[in-house]
Amino acid sequence: MEVKAEPRLVAGFRFAAVAAGLKTDATRKDLGLIVADAPAAAAAIFTTNQVKAAPVILSQRRLRSGQLRAVAANSGSANCFTGKAGMKLAVGSCAAVASELGCAEELVVPCSTGVIGHLYDLEKYRAGVREACAALSTEGLGAFATAIMTTDTKPKLASTTLRMGGATVTIAGTAKGAGMIAPNLATMLAFIVTDAALPAPALRRALANAAPASFNAITVDGDMSTNDTLMLLASGAAANRKPAARELGAFEAAVGEVAESLARQLVYDGEGASKFVTVEVRGARSTADAARAARQIANSPLVKTAFFGNDPNVGRITAAAGACGVRFDPDRIELWVDRIRIAARGMILTQALPAAAQAMRQREFSVRLDLKQGSARFSMMTCDLSYDYVKINAEYTT
Amino acid sequence: MEVKAEPRLVAGFRFAAVAAGLKTDATRKDLGLIVADAPAAAAAIFTTNQVKAAPVILSQRRLRSGQLRAVAANSGSANCFTGKAGMKLAVGSCAAVASELGCAEELVVPCSTGVIGHLYDLEKYRAGVREACAALSTEGLGAFATAIMTTDTKPKLASTTLRMGGATVTIAGTAKGAGMIAPNLATMLAFIVTDAALPAPALRRALANAAPASFNAITVDGDMSTNDTLMLLASGAAANRKPAARELGAFEAAVGEVAESLARQLVYDGEGASKFVTVEVRGARSTADAARAARQIANSPLVKTAFFGNDPNVGRITAAAGACGVRFDPDRIELWVDRIRIAARGMILTQALPAAAQAMRQREFSVRLDLKQGSARFSMMTCDLSYDYVKINAEYTT
Repeated sequence: MEVKAEPRLVAGFRFAAVAAGLKTDATRKDLGLIVADAPAAAAAIFTTNQVKAAPVILSQRRLRSGQLRAVAANSGSANCFTGKAGMKLAVGSCAAVASELGCAEELVVPCSTGVIGHLYDLEKYRAGVREACAALSTEGLGAFATAIMTTDTKPKLASTTLRMGGATVTIAGTAKGAGMIAPNLATMLAFIVTDAALPAPALRRALANAAPASFNAITVDGDMSTNDTLMLLASGAAANRKPAARELGAFEAAVGEVAESLARQLVYDGEGASKFVTVEVRGARSTADAARAARQIANSPLVKTAFFGNDPNVGRITAAAGACGVRFDPDRIELWVDRIRIAARGMILTQALPAAAQAMRQREFSVRLDLKQGSARFSMMTCDLSYDYVKINAEYTT
Repeated sequence: MEVKAEPRLVAGFRFAAVAAGLKTDATRKDLGLIVADAPAAAAAIFTTNQVKAAPVILSQRRLRSGQLRAVAANSGSANCFTGKAGMKLAVGSCAAVASELGCAEELVVPCSTGVIGHLYDLEKYRAGVREACAALSTEGLGAFATAIMTTDTKPKLASTTLRMGGATVTIAGTAKGAGMIAPNLATMLAFIVTDAALPAPALRRALANAAPASFNAITVDGDMSTNDTLMLLASGAAANRKPAARELGAFEAAVGEVAESLARQLVYDGEGASKFVTVEVRGARSTADAARAARQIANSPLVKTAFFGNDPNVGRITAAAGACGVRFDPDRIELWVDRIRIAARGMILTQALPAAAQAMRQREFSVRLDLKQGSARFSMMTCDLSYDYVKINAEYTT
């Protein structure tokens, strides 16, 4: 099983993307459809933010049935903090899609990303839906990936195949991210489709299994979004038999790898990011402790500006870990940049710093903190904090 | 009682500041002394970071007696993550001061700020101490304030007087900050001296009372330092009688106001800060809830870049509040910039945004979020996140 950063045909699904004029730049694609030929099994995970966008609330409600015909995703507006008008817009948007497809409204869910507090134009949306439905194609996943981009600079795609229940099963997904990316999902929409024949509960387990090491293990700026959605749809077109427990485990692992690939791509394309950094905390008493320390380091603006400046700053990294509430002995910890140890026995290994600074000039490197308290570990994927992050976020309008 | 942002003579104390050559720029003052004419009552609060600098560990130990003759503060090196050599250096530094003053070593505490993992030169330090002891002056608080600066652009000073126990009592303080500023103290040293005659337990209560609304209510970047120290010394030279409970309350309030003035000055001079923003959360069920929401907003990089960009970004502010774990109903909250209401009933009040954007162009403004859940409130003082923050922290060396 190999995960490739590219789309793949997934039997039972068609996709489309059009420029409906929802974005300020009317030439950019901003409306994407995922349509299953017949009702597909479906599961999803949503933001835990108290402030939820209307499309999230509607999708949560409709996903309870475990079945979907279509996902209608738009960029240009998050349809969040838009009151009753926002919910009406979300419902109306799905109705437009259902009408074109000739299916029940309840089998369509909306996903929105973009500016908060802004209502998009339903007439433009409806025209876009008509155009998109006419353009549906089995090869449209790549185009769909571009339609959900906001400040993303490139589309994110990942896919793989595996054998299960006597058939070859394909899994392919796409995501958007860029900013407001933090643990417990991000400003993030991610869609994974498969032709596997599996019921919704199996898909829910696969998502629950995939999230901790993928979308819940990334951070760009520590901000949690109002629209985060991770969705998994299964058409059943692969016509596999009911899989054995071992095969189901392999399927879950494959979904996890597709999710992790997409999550990595999100961090790589984080707003203003010039570096991809894996922050691993090991030697913790529990995974929760390791995760807490790794998150505190990966979210620290001082650490992230040091990454940007090629600065192997032991003080900032250990101070961040020391502030997270996890107990450890500073005199026992060890700190590494890639394979270069830069702190041990409560001291900075000064002679190692030039090599560490050199390693930090790479596009991708790792920071590893060993707390020497136990054997639990956790890795976060993060990026540096650059001038461009400030530029993008100071100039991106409400 | 009026707090002024300036030094004042405090009977029973002398101060000095010299350039001992501990900083890279040998012409900058980097060693400051506070010396009490006789042992002063003393209390302090220290960082809760697991990684504590050697001078913090030593000061904590020595402050248990509640008595001090001298505080020796240096910039240029935090003497943190320096192992046994660091503790030896801290002890030796105090010994040098004690030897010059002819007092017990245990009556001297060290405070260090600057680069982590770096040992300063003890010989240079000793020479500096000799020079400083020869220069001690009752008028030296202003000079002392400059000696503890690192990336600070200006010294911070605050003072006031009040009547207590039949005497006029003076309170004066100084602090340094700039970056790594977060709740539960900051990369921050703050020293407040008074000529009041009060025992150490009364000083401890005054500090515990002053911290929540001053140094624990500010943030520049959410990073907690390894060296944070807030110290209060009382010489007793005012020769006041034992104060009545009401008078002691007034003294505590005055210490609180001096601390708050210094804390405000720290945020005003935050690294790269171009704006001072008060983030008030009200209508919470408890003060803890209000504080948690206010901190999440005040620490959010997306919110802080929006402040920098004069962007009344309802989405980012409410999303930050919604991510902090405090429960509220998004449809009931109200959001204000100064006196301009920009969100209510789950909607952005679009027509109010231009005026709010205009208000955000000021050097100082407030953001107020009313959760409409109860009557508790909390205010954080924060600043914007600018290009200069990134510049300062990407280029500031290890």
